[in-house]
Amino acid sequence: MIRFNSDYTEGCHPVILERLAETNMEQTPGYGVDEHCKHAAELIKAACDAPEADVHFLVGGTQTNVTVISSALKHYQGVITANTGHINVHETGALEACGHKCLVIDTPDGKLTAEMIDRYTKAHFADDSFEHIVQPKMVYISNPTEVGTIYKKAELQAISNACKENNLYLFMDGARLGYGLASRENDLTLADIAELTDVFYIGGTKVGALFGEAVVITNDELKTDFRYNIKQRGGMLAKGRLLGIQFEVLFEEDRYMEISRHAARLAEKLKDELAAVGVSFMVDSPSNQQFPILPDSVLDELRKKYSFEFNGKTDDTHSAVRFCTCWATKEENVDALLADIKGLL
Amino acid sequence: MIRFNSDYTEGCHPVILERLAETNMEQTPGYGVDEHCKHAAELIKAACDAPEADVHFLVGGTQTNVTVISSALKHYQGVITANTGHINVHETGALEACGHKCLVIDTPDGKLTAEMIDRYTKAHFADDSFEHIVQPKMVYISNPTEVGTIYKKAELQAISNACKENNLYLFMDGARLGYGLASRENDLTLADIAELTDVFYIGGTKVGALFGEAVVITNDELKTDFRYNIKQRGGMLAKGRLLGIQFEVLFEEDRYMEISRHAARLAEKLKDELAAVGVSFMVDSPSNQQFPILPDSVLDELRKKYSFEFNGKTDDTHSAVRFCTCWATKEENVDALLADIKGLL
Amino acid sequence: MIRFNSDYTEGCHPVILERLAETNMEQTPGYGVDEHCKHAAELIKAACDAPEADVHFLVGGTQTNVTVISSALKHYQGVITANTGHINVHETGALEACGHKCLVIDTPDGKLTAEMIDRYTKAHFADDSFEHIVQPKMVYISNPTEVGTIYKKAELQAISNACKENNLYLFMDGARLGYGLASRENDLTLADIAELTDVFYIGGTKVGALFGEAVVITNDELKTDFRYNIKQRGGMLAKGRLLGIQFEVLFEEDRYMEISRHAARLAEKLKDELAAVGVSFMVDSPSNQQFPILPDSVLDELRKKYSFEFNGKTDDTHSAVRFCTCWATKEENVDALLADIKGLL
Amino acid sequence: MIRFNSDYTEGCHPVILERLAETNMEQTPGYGVDEHCKHAAELIKAACDAPEADVHFLVGGTQTNVTVISSALKHYQGVITANTGHINVHETGALEACGHKCLVIDTPDGKLTAEMIDRYTKAHFADDSFEHIVQPKMVYISNPTEVGTIYKKAELQAISNACKENNLYLFMDGARLGYGLASRENDLTLADIAELTDVFYIGGTKVGALFGEAVVITNDELKTDFRYNIKQRGGMLAKGRLLGIQFEVLFEEDRYMEISRHAARLAEKLKDELAAVGVSFMVDSPSNQQFPILPDSVLDELRKKYSFEFNGKTDDTHSAVRFCTCWATKEENVDALLADIKGLL
Repeated sequence: MIRFNSDYTEGCHPVILERLAETNMEQTPGYGVDEHCKHAAELIKAACDAPEADVHFLVGGTQTNVTVISSALKHYQGVITANTGHINVHETGALEACGHKCLVIDTPDGKLTAEMIDRYTKAHFADDSFEHIVQPKMVYISNPTEVGTIYKKAELQAISNACKENNLYLFMDGARLGYGLASRENDLTLADIAELTDVFYIGGTKVGALFGEAVVITNDELKTDFRYNIKQRGGMLAKGRLLGIQFEVLFEEDRYMEISRHAARLAEKLKDELAAVGVSFMVDSPSNQQFPILPDSVLDELRKKYSFEFNGKTDDTHSAVRFCTCWATKEENVDALLADIKGLL
Repeated sequence: MIRFNSDYTEGCHPVILERLAETNMEQTPGYGVDEHCKHAAELIKAACDAPEADVHFLVGGTQTNVTVISSALKHYQGVITANTGHINVHETGALEACGHKCLVIDTPDGKLTAEMIDRYTKAHFADDSFEHIVQPKMVYISNPTEVGTIYKKAELQAISNACKENNLYLFMDGARLGYGLASRENDLTLADIAELTDVFYIGGTKVGALFGEAVVITNDELKTDFRYNIKQRGGMLAKGRLLGIQFEVLFEEDRYMEISRHAARLAEKLKDELAAVGVSFMVDSPSNQQFPILPDSVLDELRKKYSFEFNGKTDDTHSAVRFCTCWATKEENVDALLADIKGLL
Repeated sequence: MIRFNSDYTEGCHPVILERLAETNMEQTPGYGVDEHCKHAAELIKAACDAPEADVHFLVGGTQTNVTVISSALKHYQGVITANTGHINVHETGALEACGHKCLVIDTPDGKLTAEMIDRYTKAHFADDSFEHIVQPKMVYISNPTEVGTIYKKAELQAISNACKENNLYLFMDGARLGYGLASRENDLTLADIAELTDVFYIGGTKVGALFGEAVVITNDELKTDFRYNIKQRGGMLAKGRLLGIQFEVLFEEDRYMEISRHAARLAEKLKDELAAVGVSFMVDSPSNQQFPILPDSVLDELRKKYSFEFNGKTDDTHSAVRFCTCWATKEENVDALLADIKGLL
Repeated sequence: MIRFNSDYTEGCHPVILERLAETNMEQTPGYGVDEHCKHAAELIKAACDAPEADVHFLVGGTQTNVTVISSALKHYQGVITANTGHINVHETGALEACGHKCLVIDTPDGKLTAEMIDRYTKAHFADDSFEHIVQPKMVYISNPTEVGTIYKKAELQAISNACKENNLYLFMDGARLGYGLASRENDLTLADIAELTDVFYIGGTKVGALFGEAVVITNDELKTDFRYNIKQRGGMLAKGRLLGIQFEVLFEEDRYMEISRHAARLAEKLKDELAAVGVSFMVDSPSNQQFPILPDSVLDELRKKYSFEFNGKTDDTHSAVRFCTCWATKEENVDALLADIKGLL
């Protein structure tokens, strides 16, 4: 079985394992205040051109989302999200379990726009019953989104402006951030993101680490007491250095982008070659998740050899599915998949 | 600086790193349903002589405590805990953030007794205003406790009986379980614990793993839908196999107990030799945490070379401190510490 | 200013005030265990032909919704609701503040159908990632709905069946229940509702009481410990007898239905006469809320004399508005309103 | 049966019922923005000499406590309270259900002191693990306390200073405030309380109203968006005017203090006459709750005629009990009780 079903099917970049072995018997203080975490934070701040940012390391994405959002909101405030947002769909209500409602906007492509945000927020405050409705206070966007689309710099700039005008925090979920930044269609930099958001995170779990997400906070209001929130939400790893060491490896020698480019290139190869033989897609994704629509008979054959995610029937005889590439994807496996699909079509 | 301040100062048992390297490029499904997790669960069920148990792997202790407790309780129910219980003191109110109150009983030594539990619960239901008071439904004990004490089999049996009689679930926090089981004073087995509790966990973070806690559920009522709770509380690791692999290593070849015995032996050496030169202790701990009371002048000298935890002044010139041993502690460092203390006294 | 903007613009049915005065210096126990509450509960159980039901009295609707729903759900479970459901829109996230997500289904008329419920629930359990998604466990319907529509007996029977088949509790919000039951289109009885739901409530606040909602629980699973939940959610009135006395008055001498019929008749008069002059409606409501679409110029004139709710522009020159009748509405005011609208059209 | 078991055994001051009848058919907007609420707020601000305060009306005490406290705290913050505090003991964990921990200080008499607050808070921030512990951010005191004791002006001034120095909000639960202010030992005024606290409330439920608590917020930080919190916690009464009307009656013509003095005088009579015949007390209460210690044989006789609260055995043959007076207590009943006790002793 060759797995394309997610971008967390393997372990981690080999240099991480080497570094863990080298540092294994070092004695360090716990909970993320060790020298490795400090150094990794410096590397990330440099990569983001954000010397004043606070950087924290958490273990996983759901945990990071609820920690960041709940730390920013008062009890009666909620977060605007696309209907497809991970927090709205695939976190078993982790955010609601912290007391906060997802304020959902339907989108065709997983992306919010400045106009949607502005309209939603102004409508809230214009409503006579506004105190009977959860107050919007933060905007959650994922980049790449859950359906692989990415934000262009002009779009993010407009969203940032809309947030500032409406007194909203802007939070970017970057669980797959590397695969967005490495896309041939991308025009954003880490520095842009640090400048245009109030808080975002750089995903490690899906981009070469064993686990780990690096939260970058640029808005001073959100910096205060953040570590209390990490601890309360269960995200303060006892051996915090494990996170520091992994992000040291990822942010030395451009490794984070190098491995992201690998996945991006293979996804583009998959996309281009499928398109070339007439395959259409559920969504036009420029990143490491590709959603081709294929005949069910073809999919039945493919399932004997490959693992991938089912995304729904598109007509009586076709379905959309998801193939992910990642830092560990072997080009030979992509080639085999392409050959098999072409042979079956 | 030689660290005795906690039992999570180093990385992990070297075989774990080897195994992670060997398995690194395996492709597995995520979220803990891979073969390594299944195998590790089988090893643990065998070690506990509990073939019907459910075993789940979470990342850290606070996360595990809130996931287990909140999964068992309805909104208006609370958990009985010693005042020193980790959930009551050192988790930034993680449990209250899930909506549940700690029902606190003061204890002299960190241990609850069957009589305390019985009295508390019967008093609740005898109160005319019982519906105005959080209903006790679970008992939380840690073994070893936060002050190093351990439960004897007869004590645990009595607590288990009291819980059954009062319709309470019994949950044991085993973050340091190995160091309790390896104590020369211990008479409990994993099988006893599996039989006498409804749910408990076997700590990995402090006992040789990079991270990870193995939850063992024996009460069928608590098994239902447990994975929803893991996901909601942020504890479902994407690359769940990392947990499975670590517990495979720990539960092969008696490794978990072997490394626990190492720490226990060094703690006993520390305790015995300090006692032999007349040092008294804040609490009579039979496990890997030792709390000697030393002159402040001695402590000032020791701080130049060793890291340890301050636990409070005991009189004008003395303080209680904590030294921890663990799987990674070097005997030469214990010897050096002992020599230095004896020299300074 | 003549108010049609809501159904809680006046105080209460005069007999309630008389009864409060007569009983004022009686001494009773607090918190709803007095003789008036017991008697009122008996009257309601008789009216519902549900001798085994539990009846509890709470103060207001939001409080009742969150108390009932949170008492029924475990942390990882949610409640299916129409997008227009009061719990989803107008309770400032009170339910999410208790940790539970609204599982929203879009509806054209505020009503869920058996088919929607069945499809949603089956899709949940068919999803590979079901443990990553909030588990549906209860269905919330309001009758009349927030847009005035009502459930027919056959519809409710089908919903009830779908809930049983899918292991879901069925909860009916009856904040305006009297005005639904008194509608000329209604074919449901209180006994039907008691039989077909697991829990529902009979609204007093909007139907003749100063305040108060009577919760009727017929499913034994939901009866256990319900009073703990009332207290925890702040709904246990110290002078609980005030609720008992009010529902005694409402359920003696068919008073609840009598005052409901008054409001229903006036709403039907309003609806019929507006329709007769060609006015169309945002929704075809058979109950005490009417949503005519009127020219903005007419509405501007009407606002000088009447208070009513704005529900949105329907085209460049028209808007939908809401007029409510209630137990206290004076027929002369309805006549004046009709005359004014007809004059302006 | 003559009831002394609580201070909410009767309905309300008769003028309130008269006023409700007079205003019954007025049409008003809902949710507390009507003219009666505005007028009542003005009367209260005048009584407190706090023209800049915000005044809100809620239904009951538990609801008010959780609304005020949860509105002031971030998720990781808690509230310091005496162990006897109502929020810690008798609200079924309503505050924890909002996610916040009670930070409990043991007190001999239900009263916190400035020194306790200062010590607790400084110890928190001095702890190396402070981020692992709930952060104190508010102090909750009740006046009178749950055991009848009251704060003197110097004590409240000192507490206020300690809170300011430690960056804590000070919140006074005044469920029985009138009975404290009317005590012969009291030296506080409403204006003092408004000046020395950040937020407090004036209890109506126990002091002449059917129900209702008037929250007075003087700290601007706590004013923002308070009504969202009221709605979210289920405390926004649809017919909000009922609260406004009641507080209009209570704060016209010094009625609130007049009826408080009645209860205070009768409590003092009870206390003095029992003390004169040698009865001792569980606590030296200067307010409307008295806790005499009486022989169990005497109590058994008294129970045939009177209702009162049991507070615990004090030795093998004696128990402490609670007698409450209130605005409605008849002097003849107090006289009868005194005669009976004296006769039985």
